[in-house]
Amino acid sequence: MVATPAVRIGRDQFHLAWDPAIEPVASVRSGAVVEFDMLDAGGGQITADSTVADLASLDFSRVDQVNGPVAVEGARPGDVLQVDLLDFEPGDWGWTASIPGFGLLADVFEEAALRITSLADRRRAEFLPGIRVPLVPFCGEVGVAPVDGPRSTIPPDLHGGNMDTRHLTAGATLFLPVFAPDARFSMGDGHAAQGDGEVCGTAIETPMRASVRLTIRRDLPITGPEFLTPEGTPAERPVGRRYATDGIGPDVREAARDATRRMIDWLGREHGVVPIDAYLLCSVAVDLRISEIVDVPNFVVTAHCPLSIFD
Amino acid sequence: MVATPAVRIGRDQFHLAWDPAIEPVASVRSGAVVEFDMLDAGGGQITADSTVADLASLDFSRVDQVNGPVAVEGARPGDVLQVDLLDFEPGDWGWTASIPGFGLLADVFEEAALRITSLADRRRAEFLPGIRVPLVPFCGEVGVAPVDGPRSTIPPDLHGGNMDTRHLTAGATLFLPVFAPDARFSMGDGHAAQGDGEVCGTAIETPMRASVRLTIRRDLPITGPEFLTPEGTPAERPVGRRYATDGIGPDVREAARDATRRMIDWLGREHGVVPIDAYLLCSVAVDLRISEIVDVPNFVVTAHCPLSIFD
Repeated sequence: MVATPAVRIGRDQFHLAWDPAIEPVASVRSGAVVEFDMLDAGGGQITADSTVADLASLDFSRVDQVNGPVAVEGARPGDVLQVDLLDFEPGDWGWTASIPGFGLLADVFEEAALRITSLADRRRAEFLPGIRVPLVPFCGEVGVAPVDGPRSTIPPDLHGGNMDTRHLTAGATLFLPVFAPDARFSMGDGHAAQGDGEVCGTAIETPMRASVRLTIRRDLPITGPEFLTPEGTPAERPVGRRYATDGIGPDVREAARDATRRMIDWLGREHGVVPIDAYLLCSVAVDLRISEIVDVPNFVVTAHCPLSIFD
Repeated sequence: MVATPAVRIGRDQFHLAWDPAIEPVASVRSGAVVEFDMLDAGGGQITADSTVADLASLDFSRVDQVNGPVAVEGARPGDVLQVDLLDFEPGDWGWTASIPGFGLLADVFEEAALRITSLADRRRAEFLPGIRVPLVPFCGEVGVAPVDGPRSTIPPDLHGGNMDTRHLTAGATLFLPVFAPDARFSMGDGHAAQGDGEVCGTAIETPMRASVRLTIRRDLPITGPEFLTPEGTPAERPVGRRYATDGIGPDVREAARDATRRMIDWLGREHGVVPIDAYLLCSVAVDLRISEIVDVPNFVVTAHCPLSIFD
């Protein structure tokens, strides 16, 4: 850890909804460092020995917990909470699942799938044989108490929450509007690696230790999450060739689905990856970008796969 | 130019619709290099001396012309046309406009705006005082004859066309499904620089000279545009810090609008850029990415602005 924390939030200090009524588990002054020790987004129900059969018995009322809340003394609605993301330390294993009914292609991949990945090599994880994904750890859930509640922890909103934004890595600074007294900051949902989009609905999910600095700002008229990425941009893909597939049409989400389907096709024909594995791989290593969103009525979403992941 | 062209397509050899009925202006064998000399997407109606008043008299029936078509002898429906993008040489000036009724925030920016940019420095263009945008030239329009026609050249589709994809730069290889005999390839809409999304509807529009190699492929089961980016990835932003703003909600296009609006706000408060200029700057230098598209009902689109554009 990079700085002496004012408080440590443990694995058992979590909540299962975003809600301004949830009482803080700790309180810090503006500028303090807080250290978190967090279970994975499955709340510890999935282990390194789990099989796909265990997904069937997953208790969804216990998933996507967030740790906290931490009160930042004196923060008021209308202020902004500056969250300096100091450090992320993933566990030594992670899981990636396609969960029936959830994910961008839930109608295509109806059966459950689970993949366990070793994170013993802290730089890259062998996600599939001969396919190594760079580890860029971050937390999918980072937020303050919303304006009202209780709310599910699945959808993100203007208070942050489940933003699943892979650029919120160590060295980044996140700004969140404050809606409740003392801001009430929480985080969770450790990800060892993820592509822009998180198309199958899970990343490489992992327990995570993290430290953040929480600072009240009164000079920023921010209405939703904004952030500054670090020097060196570790979440940026290594410079190198990418293979890219397009989805084109009047609905941006449908275009994203088409782009992902074509990427899955390419991963199969070019690299011999079976469709369900390709879907999971897209979620952890392929990036969705909006190439154009103005040439009515058809927009272009492009899925970019870095070729550096292939041995 | 990097290779001896088999044919040269001139500025006056253009068409204003995608249509398999349009007769080719030239014919080449598979593997031939074709050189194009193209007017800007305004068809030459806008000059380096134009003012916003000239936008009012723009004849829209003459915009977004594409040069060609070039027949590739023997290409059959079901084949794929491999387009090696060899070289792009923009003109020495370009224009960027907000055209009433067109663009991601057409309802916000109702008045016409025009900005002329010198491209004399071939690496970076000073788009606004103290704000320099890296030049990564490409063509917004790259396509083959579609399955039917005539079709407007504004929306892209599975035959390519107005994809406005900034990664289709020199060194990239594009694959397009063939729908008509001899493929009938055309291109146009020179862009000196653009962000992912092209939010205001125009890039830095410029006359362009380009050369491409056209090769018939019969081993690729491709149903829409796919491409390989070059080694070194010139279209990738320089590694460095980015400021990013989120749009969050159930409609991906609305989320993109919110992310763009927040970026315009940031450009104003942090860099003193007035809203209309910020909107144009987003179109030429800010990238829209889909951060997550699975956490129903709310998705996150993030606008990324590279800080390296600011002096």
